[in-house]
Amino acid sequence: MLKAPDSDFLARLEARLGPGGLRPAEGAWLEEPRGRLHGQGAAVARPKDRDAVAAVVEACAAAGVGIVPYGGGTGLVGGQVQTEGPAPVILSLDRMQAIRLVDPLDNVAIVEAGAVLADVQAAAAEADRLFPLALASEGSCRIGGNLATNAGGTQVLRYGTARDLCLGVEAVMADGSLFHGLRRLRKDNTGYDLRHLLIGSEGTLGIITAAALKLFPAPKEQVTALLAVADPSGALDLLAGLRDRLGEAITGFELMHRQGPAFLAETGIAHVRPFGDWPDWLVLLQLDSGAESALQARSMAALEQAAEAGLISDAVVAQTGQQAADFWALRESIPAGNRRVGAIASHDISVPVSAVPAFIDAAGRAVARIDPTIRINCFGHLGDGNLHYNAFPATGRSREDYDACKADVTRAVHDTVDRFGGSFSAEHGVGRLKVGELERYGDPAKLAAMRAVKAALDPKGILNPGAVLRAE
Amino acid sequence: MLKAPDSDFLARLEARLGPGGLRPAEGAWLEEPRGRLHGQGAAVARPKDRDAVAAVVEACAAAGVGIVPYGGGTGLVGGQVQTEGPAPVILSLDRMQAIRLVDPLDNVAIVEAGAVLADVQAAAAEADRLFPLALASEGSCRIGGNLATNAGGTQVLRYGTARDLCLGVEAVMADGSLFHGLRRLRKDNTGYDLRHLLIGSEGTLGIITAAALKLFPAPKEQVTALLAVADPSGALDLLAGLRDRLGEAITGFELMHRQGPAFLAETGIAHVRPFGDWPDWLVLLQLDSGAESALQARSMAALEQAAEAGLISDAVVAQTGQQAADFWALRESIPAGNRRVGAIASHDISVPVSAVPAFIDAAGRAVARIDPTIRINCFGHLGDGNLHYNAFPATGRSREDYDACKADVTRAVHDTVDRFGGSFSAEHGVGRLKVGELERYGDPAKLAAMRAVKAALDPKGILNPGAVLRAE
Repeated sequence: MLKAPDSDFLARLEARLGPGGLRPAEGAWLEEPRGRLHGQGAAVARPKDRDAVAAVVEACAAAGVGIVPYGGGTGLVGGQVQTEGPAPVILSLDRMQAIRLVDPLDNVAIVEAGAVLADVQAAAAEADRLFPLALASEGSCRIGGNLATNAGGTQVLRYGTARDLCLGVEAVMADGSLFHGLRRLRKDNTGYDLRHLLIGSEGTLGIITAAALKLFPAPKEQVTALLAVADPSGALDLLAGLRDRLGEAITGFELMHRQGPAFLAETGIAHVRPFGDWPDWLVLLQLDSGAESALQARSMAALEQAAEAGLISDAVVAQTGQQAADFWALRESIPAGNRRVGAIASHDISVPVSAVPAFIDAAGRAVARIDPTIRINCFGHLGDGNLHYNAFPATGRSREDYDACKADVTRAVHDTVDRFGGSFSAEHGVGRLKVGELERYGDPAKLAAMRAVKAALDPKGILNPGAVLRAE
Repeated sequence: MLKAPDSDFLARLEARLGPGGLRPAEGAWLEEPRGRLHGQGAAVARPKDRDAVAAVVEACAAAGVGIVPYGGGTGLVGGQVQTEGPAPVILSLDRMQAIRLVDPLDNVAIVEAGAVLADVQAAAAEADRLFPLALASEGSCRIGGNLATNAGGTQVLRYGTARDLCLGVEAVMADGSLFHGLRRLRKDNTGYDLRHLLIGSEGTLGIITAAALKLFPAPKEQVTALLAVADPSGALDLLAGLRDRLGEAITGFELMHRQGPAFLAETGIAHVRPFGDWPDWLVLLQLDSGAESALQARSMAALEQAAEAGLISDAVVAQTGQQAADFWALRESIPAGNRRVGAIASHDISVPVSAVPAFIDAAGRAVARIDPTIRINCFGHLGDGNLHYNAFPATGRSREDYDACKADVTRAVHDTVDRFGGSFSAEHGVGRLKVGELERYGDPAKLAAMRAVKAALDPKGILNPGAVLRAE
């Protein structure tokens, strides 16, 4: 049974952590970005190094105090805010931001868990290398959180998720012991892969304190284009055709429904308008080559062929870096437009890539049966089968008008996902908001194994209580 | 406490599995390829489907009988042969070989665990796709074993190890329950990654019965070359230079010392001789492109530049597919030559890529201090920092002459590896031969976590007893 820390406990912790090491839990530390949850915390512990992290964990383990690990606070499923149970210690890694090493020969960076993603990207770029994890919150999210949640983003198609970009982690386990897993090896088959168990466990099995990350050649050639396609099925055919012509050069293949730009216009968010009228469906295509390979000429030929085959009805290829950035800004602004309109329900789902068109059809019908006035904004990483499938009120109405059917909408969408062999959380994780969904849709043998592993590695249940698995 | 199955147990198992489902444990089922271990088994169970696998596991769990999972039997660390303790049931997946699906749009293959790797490669090729796992034993090893051991091979540099090529697994857990993890999703963040926990656990946490595998565009352009380099450090400089010029086209970068071809000559194994005299060090370079990208011209330019920079003293570029195959046969024959000479001690190690030259120097000195007559044949996957570092008797002497110093050689090599932050088992795994090494070099927090996970997921210890972790 966990308990809230008393003042003696906090005083001892403060003494151990030194000046600035303990502060009141308030403001951003207790909020999640969409304001859906309000957390609680007895204090925020801000250790400066891994030994101090271990000291916090050891103290909490001894006293039976819960710990909520906190990275950049950008998670969208409430993994960073504990809403129930005794007040925990919030463990922030924000004073552990060092980028210890960028090695362009080994193609490795060693960074502390509190390093901000954009800083890691910049450090890699300075060494003429690419760290390819890229997501909307990259200016504030932290590597520890990216790994704990196995973050995805816009370049997964080519480079994989955070998990795939990590060679090793250093972590503090629930008893305060230190896992020295900060290896820089490309191959290491010496026992169970504790790294992969910690990655994606959302801070419930251990606290990642540092990571060895994979770097790649910096892109030497880039092509960015906005393409008008007929529908998701046409977008898939386009993807297949481009793959045959351009192979691994395809870094991003983002599908957007016209509802996305329409919401930007509706809510007054500035954005490019490269087409006269927005087509029903858009693809943002990003091509990169780590070597000089005449990518520009090859991609123009491939796009022309696609246009001749009727797969593209219109295309705008960025002529400058600024234009490319504007195209990406269009894509990255869509969540902001969504927030201003105010979603009835949001879904971060994945299905097998080939099933995306059928899923969009089926989910659209299922939602319309619940309420035909609901507007859908569907966009996402088509190449990964990952869609952000969000439901919005009709023009002139508010999300509150739909409170009664909100749960039904999510149930219909997730049931449809399940029918297609998909996932109800493609990249955001489980956190606290989706614990029930995991219980509902998760494989029973997997859930049993997860509970057994949690009990084995965190027998007192102090690490992020109530996240991923319901607290006992 | 485990016990050997009695005749009643075996009779019931035979009835459940049907004709051909149970056979005596003998011959190859009890051997490992280098003849270093002789196993034991009460019988070989050969289920035809996942339910039958579950029935075997459930029966063994109820009776406290150990299970040794058996794929192609090609493992090199004794994971497939149990030498001590009560006789187990050997669980062979050789009747579960179906390749259920090859989907070129989703780039996914669904295969049963008993499918032979070469058959999976061929099925992918038929659909104009590549399944990139490639290793010397591909004609007999099976996918289930490849995943259980996280197999590596010659294309890891570009495509990763078996782990990186797997989207999902179906597995029978230690209580006989079925984990339905055969997903075809590129992104799925719904709880702990049981797939990655099972992969590389060498059959000690569950029995993989089927897998969803990633496919890639089939190579449209290929370049294969044998390059003479001055030394490992020069080979690394060459790799870095080629990476800048050719980026992700580099699929294989295999380093070989001249001792390798010399052993082939010494033991009468046919091989190409593209150079007049063998240079001290050779690189086998494989370049592939999944799209038309003028790879031939680009790679010639890159090799010429490398020659001008003094990084290559001689080069032979394969002019035909046969010649390319011959170059690869040279590389793949080296283990056969080694076996004929008879190694004193073999080591499958990895270090950070940039540390390879210093490691080779340091290990050479350490072995020479033990016995200066020992010959080293060092070869491997330089791009992954993975070397097969093997010690052989002087000409005219036999391995038995070195029995007294054999253990010292391995200790010296592994201590050197450890000093460089490396791994004593880069791709072969732990099995039974390296349990002691894991205990010696493994991180204590990782070992504690492994033992806790094993106890949690296989509380009776029936799955591959004594592999990876010492049986309790």
